[in-house]
Amino acid sequence: MRMIALYKMPPDPAAFDRAYFGTHLPLLAKVPGLERTVVSRFTRTVMGEGLYLMAEMFFPDLATLKTALKTPQMGEAGQNLATFADGLTTLMWAEEVEPS
Amino acid sequence: MRMIALYKMPPDPAAFDRAYFGTHLPLLAKVPGLERTVVSRFTRTVMGEGLYLMAEMFFPDLATLKTALKTPQMGEAGQNLATFADGLTTLMWAEEVEPS
Repeated sequence: MRMIALYKMPPDPAAFDRAYFGTHLPLLAKVPGLERTVVSRFTRTVMGEGLYLMAEMFFPDLATLKTALKTPQMGEAGQNLATFADGLTTLMWAEEVEPS
Repeated sequence: MRMIALYKMPPDPAAFDRAYFGTHLPLLAKVPGLERTVVSRFTRTVMGEGLYLMAEMFFPDLATLKTALKTPQMGEAGQNLATFADGLTTLMWAEEVEPS
């Protein structure tokens, strides 16, 4: 399953990118149980209020995600995020709906 | 690449699901060039304002997506969406950032 982070457009995208890719992603990569993180840029908004960036954090299962959220590594990544993405971040668990 | 649809929490989730899975997804499946659609439910909000549902529409490339957006099938899917998801929908193009 995935934990999804959505980021609103930051006031200074270049500064956000430096902090996000230079500092935050390396901290996130240390979180136990996290298999991989896929980051995507939203390149065009067709409808609604556009966002800036999405991160998909892949975990093997819900139990591993729950454990990961309580680790010091996740705590450090979260504290780091608050230094540059305060008010921009939505963080949710996502579970795929099986095709019927 | 993907086109991502994000849906806010609908006033009547059961009615939304009936329309979305029963009518909208079958219309979307007819869109030429669309490889597959992965639908996920947001099961918990850890931070920020939570959302309800995400649909990831996979296209082989940007040109195919651009062409698909102009097809009558996509028009029909969009008109259908407006009948039950008005004001709930954000629709964006997403491009993965290559890992550095």
